[in-house]
Amino acid sequence: MKKILRDYKSGKVSLEEVLQKIKILPYEDLGFAKIDTHRQLRKGCSETIFCKGKTINQVIEIIKQMVKNNTNVLATKADKKIFNRVKKIFPKAQYNELAKTIIIKNQKVKKKKGKILILTAGTSDIPVAEEASVTAEMMGNDVEKVYDVGVAGIHRLFDIKDKIVSSNVIIVVAGMEGALASIVGGLTSKPVIAVPTSVGYGASFKGVAPLLTMLNCCAEGVVVVNIDNGFGAGYFASLINR
Amino acid sequence: MKKILRDYKSGKVSLEEVLQKIKILPYEDLGFAKIDTHRQLRKGCSETIFCKGKTINQVIEIIKQMVKNNTNVLATKADKKIFNRVKKIFPKAQYNELAKTIIIKNQKVKKKKGKILILTAGTSDIPVAEEASVTAEMMGNDVEKVYDVGVAGIHRLFDIKDKIVSSNVIIVVAGMEGALASIVGGLTSKPVIAVPTSVGYGASFKGVAPLLTMLNCCAEGVVVVNIDNGFGAGYFASLINR
Amino acid sequence: MKKILRDYKSGKVSLEEVLQKIKILPYEDLGFAKIDTHRQLRKGCSETIFCKGKTINQVIEIIKQMVKNNTNVLATKADKKIFNRVKKIFPKAQYNELAKTIIIKNQKVKKKKGKILILTAGTSDIPVAEEASVTAEMMGNDVEKVYDVGVAGIHRLFDIKDKIVSSNVIIVVAGMEGALASIVGGLTSKPVIAVPTSVGYGASFKGVAPLLTMLNCCAEGVVVVNIDNGFGAGYFASLINR
Amino acid sequence: MKKILRDYKSGKVSLEEVLQKIKILPYEDLGFAKIDTHRQLRKGCSETIFCKGKTINQVIEIIKQMVKNNTNVLATKADKKIFNRVKKIFPKAQYNELAKTIIIKNQKVKKKKGKILILTAGTSDIPVAEEASVTAEMMGNDVEKVYDVGVAGIHRLFDIKDKIVSSNVIIVVAGMEGALASIVGGLTSKPVIAVPTSVGYGASFKGVAPLLTMLNCCAEGVVVVNIDNGFGAGYFASLINR
Amino acid sequence: MKKILRDYKSGKVSLEEVLQKIKILPYEDLGFAKIDTHRQLRKGCSETIFCKGKTINQVIEIIKQMVKNNTNVLATKADKKIFNRVKKIFPKAQYNELAKTIIIKNQKVKKKKGKILILTAGTSDIPVAEEASVTAEMMGNDVEKVYDVGVAGIHRLFDIKDKIVSSNVIIVVAGMEGALASIVGGLTSKPVIAVPTSVGYGASFKGVAPLLTMLNCCAEGVVVVNIDNGFGAGYFASLINR
Amino acid sequence: MKKILRDYKSGKVSLEEVLQKIKILPYEDLGFAKIDTHRQLRKGCSETIFCKGKTINQVIEIIKQMVKNNTNVLATKADKKIFNRVKKIFPKAQYNELAKTIIIKNQKVKKKKGKILILTAGTSDIPVAEEASVTAEMMGNDVEKVYDVGVAGIHRLFDIKDKIVSSNVIIVVAGMEGALASIVGGLTSKPVIAVPTSVGYGASFKGVAPLLTMLNCCAEGVVVVNIDNGFGAGYFASLINR
Amino acid sequence: MKKILRDYKSGKVSLEEVLQKIKILPYEDLGFAKIDTHRQLRKGCSETIFCKGKTINQVIEIIKQMVKNNTNVLATKADKKIFNRVKKIFPKAQYNELAKTIIIKNQKVKKKKGKILILTAGTSDIPVAEEASVTAEMMGNDVEKVYDVGVAGIHRLFDIKDKIVSSNVIIVVAGMEGALASIVGGLTSKPVIAVPTSVGYGASFKGVAPLLTMLNCCAEGVVVVNIDNGFGAGYFASLINR
Amino acid sequence: MKKILRDYKSGKVSLEEVLQKIKILPYEDLGFAKIDTHRQLRKGCSETIFCKGKTINQVIEIIKQMVKNNTNVLATKADKKIFNRVKKIFPKAQYNELAKTIIIKNQKVKKKKGKILILTAGTSDIPVAEEASVTAEMMGNDVEKVYDVGVAGIHRLFDIKDKIVSSNVIIVVAGMEGALASIVGGLTSKPVIAVPTSVGYGASFKGVAPLLTMLNCCAEGVVVVNIDNGFGAGYFASLINR
Repeated sequence: MKKILRDYKSGKVSLEEVLQKIKILPYEDLGFAKIDTHRQLRKGCSETIFCKGKTINQVIEIIKQMVKNNTNVLATKADKKIFNRVKKIFPKAQYNELAKTIIIKNQKVKKKKGKILILTAGTSDIPVAEEASVTAEMMGNDVEKVYDVGVAGIHRLFDIKDKIVSSNVIIVVAGMEGALASIVGGLTSKPVIAVPTSVGYGASFKGVAPLLTMLNCCAEGVVVVNIDNGFGAGYFASLINR
Repeated sequence: MKKILRDYKSGKVSLEEVLQKIKILPYEDLGFAKIDTHRQLRKGCSETIFCKGKTINQVIEIIKQMVKNNTNVLATKADKKIFNRVKKIFPKAQYNELAKTIIIKNQKVKKKKGKILILTAGTSDIPVAEEASVTAEMMGNDVEKVYDVGVAGIHRLFDIKDKIVSSNVIIVVAGMEGALASIVGGLTSKPVIAVPTSVGYGASFKGVAPLLTMLNCCAEGVVVVNIDNGFGAGYFASLINR
Repeated sequence: MKKILRDYKSGKVSLEEVLQKIKILPYEDLGFAKIDTHRQLRKGCSETIFCKGKTINQVIEIIKQMVKNNTNVLATKADKKIFNRVKKIFPKAQYNELAKTIIIKNQKVKKKKGKILILTAGTSDIPVAEEASVTAEMMGNDVEKVYDVGVAGIHRLFDIKDKIVSSNVIIVVAGMEGALASIVGGLTSKPVIAVPTSVGYGASFKGVAPLLTMLNCCAEGVVVVNIDNGFGAGYFASLINR
Repeated sequence: MKKILRDYKSGKVSLEEVLQKIKILPYEDLGFAKIDTHRQLRKGCSETIFCKGKTINQVIEIIKQMVKNNTNVLATKADKKIFNRVKKIFPKAQYNELAKTIIIKNQKVKKKKGKILILTAGTSDIPVAEEASVTAEMMGNDVEKVYDVGVAGIHRLFDIKDKIVSSNVIIVVAGMEGALASIVGGLTSKPVIAVPTSVGYGASFKGVAPLLTMLNCCAEGVVVVNIDNGFGAGYFASLINR
Repeated sequence: MKKILRDYKSGKVSLEEVLQKIKILPYEDLGFAKIDTHRQLRKGCSETIFCKGKTINQVIEIIKQMVKNNTNVLATKADKKIFNRVKKIFPKAQYNELAKTIIIKNQKVKKKKGKILILTAGTSDIPVAEEASVTAEMMGNDVEKVYDVGVAGIHRLFDIKDKIVSSNVIIVVAGMEGALASIVGGLTSKPVIAVPTSVGYGASFKGVAPLLTMLNCCAEGVVVVNIDNGFGAGYFASLINR
Repeated sequence: MKKILRDYKSGKVSLEEVLQKIKILPYEDLGFAKIDTHRQLRKGCSETIFCKGKTINQVIEIIKQMVKNNTNVLATKADKKIFNRVKKIFPKAQYNELAKTIIIKNQKVKKKKGKILILTAGTSDIPVAEEASVTAEMMGNDVEKVYDVGVAGIHRLFDIKDKIVSSNVIIVVAGMEGALASIVGGLTSKPVIAVPTSVGYGASFKGVAPLLTMLNCCAEGVVVVNIDNGFGAGYFASLINR
Repeated sequence: MKKILRDYKSGKVSLEEVLQKIKILPYEDLGFAKIDTHRQLRKGCSETIFCKGKTINQVIEIIKQMVKNNTNVLATKADKKIFNRVKKIFPKAQYNELAKTIIIKNQKVKKKKGKILILTAGTSDIPVAEEASVTAEMMGNDVEKVYDVGVAGIHRLFDIKDKIVSSNVIIVVAGMEGALASIVGGLTSKPVIAVPTSVGYGASFKGVAPLLTMLNCCAEGVVVVNIDNGFGAGYFASLINR
Repeated sequence: MKKILRDYKSGKVSLEEVLQKIKILPYEDLGFAKIDTHRQLRKGCSETIFCKGKTINQVIEIIKQMVKNNTNVLATKADKKIFNRVKKIFPKAQYNELAKTIIIKNQKVKKKKGKILILTAGTSDIPVAEEASVTAEMMGNDVEKVYDVGVAGIHRLFDIKDKIVSSNVIIVVAGMEGALASIVGGLTSKPVIAVPTSVGYGASFKGVAPLLTMLNCCAEGVVVVNIDNGFGAGYFASLINR
């Protein structure tokens, strides 16, 4: 921006050209908060591609553009078929089969100091936890994962109290009744991000049961993201990780 | 029954009279399980009057008939107005203002050996717990109550582990997210009866949230009754208390 | 505990060591009810593996660990493909195709005295009933099964009144409108565990209709578990079977 | 119609007048089934006024017009306040306090031969049953009512089997779990009209539970009307009563 | 019964034997309406097999038993695969591919006089209408079908007013918004049975939209059956067809 | 903008000042459509005050500001109590008791040529229709209202076909099953705005039933607004009225 | 009509014949708006075939009849398989793979002056937008499409303000949270037709989330059609495009 | 702890006394994270009393105990009646009538550096925003509030971009369609806590609409708390405010 204005002053560009520039200028230059986001993103996490509902070609086109800009790529809810196509074109692409994420690292990301702890209630919640983990790691976070510490065997949770104490942010991923978020929320003063999963059957209604559980959490310090939204949890955790 | 048949054989009653008797005979005599229920009820818990939706006069008429039969009376969801009317006619009537129950004791009930433990997650769940308590006590059970041990301060729950160990059946009453049932279910091998309450606001949807939580409980040994159904929990607890 | 403290007093261990010991002390040593649960489980029913949402490899790893500990294995919601893999590794594994359960018996289980009666409303409810049956039998219960006694032909139910009278606990499995639980609850003073199933179509909403029916059951002595949760019903029935 | 055309031919009325007549002719004359309805209504049941959401003045204006036409009046969901106003103007008006119906009989209605049997599961369902009863009686039907025969004490239902056999149509009014409709449907080959009521609490969701129960009824010969729609049931019962 | 008692009096049977007899007496002897139902069914419509959720072998076993008893067979929700297997064993079996019904006629059914009219709102509702049609025809009814007369072109409906006038019962099958039932109900004084279908998308919620429409129908004389329940509508229509 | 840049070039303002200016530039200067909206509103309809959830003082403060600006005032969902307070301060205020609207006319509004026709299915839908009517009239539209032409007596609707033909836009207000929108949509090529109302009971679920009906409307040319949103319908009708 | 009556007067036709004529007179002759609709349709948009739920043969039969009448054909929700069959018979048929629409143009459609702008929030919403686009173009509208301008990057929306200003009607297609409709509604005084899509996962509940968002839109001038109903939006947009 | 052990070693206390001490030792001493919470709470925010469902006496008893411990008191969802009683006993009690909060400040709270920005979409959302504000201020946060910046007039939001840039955490409170959270989430890289409110009518379903909107938010960095849960949002915001 400064350069444009200096060029204008020095006569290199005309008034009309400056006006035109300002018009097409990315809004970031106009001072929208979006700028920070972009900068943050550029440093922390690249644009994310939500693959569901997009054709493989659309996904590839978006990746191409991002790779051209040398940004890091994170694609979520990407099934194997998409990855196979992507891999052929971008050999650096890496796939996390559980998380169904594709990443292409083109830039180094600055490491954050604090640790993010990701807990799951059961084994079946792992895919969503992995999506959160991949996302947070892409954004420069140190992630620790402890899986299968659900409330049916609450002593397993107490065994990891040191990890709880030593982390900055906690992500709790749980399906079925989702009570783990309440327990963890009651045990710690750290911010807890609760992710309901569609794991379960019958009256879990594809994640509605844990979603409601988590929204009604009587322990303070617990917030909620969409069902199966591991990405959203990982992203938010990174935002508030110091 | 035997007497009728013997009287018939000895000629005291005619064939027609016997046939008629069999027809009007309470179904219990025909061997329906209902008989046991009746007998059980007579010994354990009297017929219960669900007051909601009944006029005061209807409630009083039912009580009159029960008192005439000398059975114990338990009326639930009875507001103060009903009680005041009942009290005038049946001075022995007792009211539990929190539980909104009226009881009239006309017979002694045989005491059961085992103890029923009733827990609530919060203070606001107490009315439903009291309904369960009144019901179970009417049926001859020894009831212990510990209120406000919700998961937001889980150490309060651990403080009462002795009570958990020493009871036969546990009733967990919880609104909001209802996670207490899962925790208790995970801590004990005793049968747990979970009662969701309509306590809470917003996405608790008048008890739907804890209901779903409890139905999806990943700890074994937990069953569920209707929202705010303290009576049902107390009754079932008595059935399985040894 | 006493020993540690005595050792400390006698100077065998330092203050720091004692403090450390108290910190890492297994929670069981603090007397949590969980211990009893474990012991109970070891005698009654082995750990259960809920297969849905787990990869085949995860299931096999869990079984391996359990077999190493010589415990009995019960895996639910296991489709044929899982069983085929399991069977190759654990030739003792048995499959109940209707129930979709895998069991591996490594220990003898002590038989209980009382009988558990399992009823279904229709033929399509049998898979869930079989899951309940397999579970209860694994825990040492004598199980009797009567299928297809739904309310559309209520005389079929009355034909089995002897079985109802002679059992300790009754499990009622019903889809569609789920009214069978109410009828059985009205006929008997035995505890009834109602299992709604996702059998039906249209306004049964995959089990919501019978779930609501059963929760609103106006007969006393009926509790409810999750839709299609045969395992939970069988487990609870075993807990309260004398 | 014939008269108009003959008058036109004979010159008594002009072409324009005939065209005008045809235009404003009640659609009944064009042969729509609606005519029969009107005639049927005139003989069987007068127009019905659904009071809820109408101002008292609106209700009174409608009644005035009907009384002027000498038709019978049936107003439903009418609270006492409305009746008091109506009574002052139409002294012949009669109120059924339970049913919340107002009727004014201006014409004799032809009696039907068959009998309609109205059953309720509980005492609290009576208001809806009374609305059905008032409606059916207004339309010339012989109505028999048996209240409080719910499935919790199914023997009460068997005591009335003669009434079931001797009636033409059966209306079953039930709240809570609504299972009575299924039982009655299973016991009889008579058409059964099921009316769910909003009686109950918690997971009855103001009538949703019995509504779903009744829609999923596995007994044949059962149809359903809206929650608390006693009028609709009484009306339909009259239509099919012979 | 009389004989038993006389034998007892004359000493042929002991007191214990009489008591035992009374206990096991078939309920039919007590005169339950169920008997009449059976007789009615034998004359009108054979037992119906709901195929969904049953294995092919279960379906075939049930058919075998029915054929042995020489009753007519109606199987609903039967896909082609089931039919192919059935056809091999019972060559007389007929399949209605749209209705997904299998019928085997072993007895002649007495024809009823009145006509049942079946209307659908759209082309996609035809399968459910065909199920109703097959059912009603199996029970001896004369069925007339008019498809695709939905409210978007209401004149099509008026074109068939003669058919409406000449029928005894009308079945309206409609998905999407289900308004056809209201229109037909407003046009005729004949009993209307409304069948919501799961046809539609988005906010039709698999039939919930037309179900609610039909339940709230402001025209009198309309009752409702479950979503896609063509069988239930056809059966009920036959019951009330004169 | 040009001025700023020229000042910068001429040295009147520094580089930093230009950058700052660009940052805070009001968006209106960028020509967003919002401006047009404001102008449109000034000519057509004044700002609207949704009273529900606002304190009386808040409502009055907003009105004061509007009156100071000499704009017309429309307040919706305003109960009598609010109006009484408003009337004291603004004697020109007018109240429509059915619509629960307050209007204060400070400017003349230009009349539109086309006519908006507002239909209701029943008498109870009138309040919502009146809200639509008041709104449309405030915006300069000629409004014609025909109430109580629901589908239960469809001939009433045909009687007003001339009004349908002569109007530009049609608003259909209907509760219960909401079928009127479908019928009108099928009869006309005019744009139809459907307004579901919370009129009804039971399975109308406070307007959900007609909302779904209208969303699934199989007649083309029908759009929907929120339950009871007469204002929204009147506003949109005015937008598309020519 | 006049002719018939004159013929009758002059004796050419009998009284019975006149009566018969009046009965069968096409409703169009009575002046129903439906006629206009037909004419409008013939000029603007041909009949539309909703393929879902129809067999391929049914679709082809309908197309045949339409082609015979020389009208334009629009078939929606048509998968590739249907198109392939149609293409063989009607070589002029064109397929929009994203929109899943088949069109056959047999007549020229008169062009409208105004422009319809179609916006989508994301890439995955494009299929529904394309359905709207194809529909509007078939009806003679000039359509402009801008995809992927969702609220996550709101500056993209501001870049197209010129397009917003220069269009007559705006269709907003959005899944997930559907907030785009509110933003656009707040920015413009043009009528906005909001189309929720089933794009998303978890708590989007297949389009329920954006549907509710759009119905509750606090910006005036926004109406809603069914989830994924691109056709309905395109059709309505054409109706109100000048 | 160390002191106890040293006293034991030195013989001041017996072995039994030490064992007893360890048993009753607050769990905090065992190293549970709960300790930190308590300490944090003591410094930041006192225990919170959720008044709904509690009797006035219960509220007062809790306050008494807290005041005795000299902690700060925050009571939420407290209506005026409760405050009046509290005020008499605790003259220092302050009431926020909009927020319905009671606070009693007994200790100074350490101020945090960062600012929390609270936005509401409309005037009716203010009570929930005030609850968040009171909570955050009690915990030592600098709170800035900007009300009524909903998406219907999105320029109002852009006017406050400086406030957005200068705050650390943003709380967005919105009812109706709740789109504001998406917009703010799209504009900023700051963590956004979205609070749906029950403001609205019809299809807002008491807050379900904005809840779903916010859960499906396509902008990253947005998390959600329960409907109307201003307290939870304020508390979480304080946790992550630096």
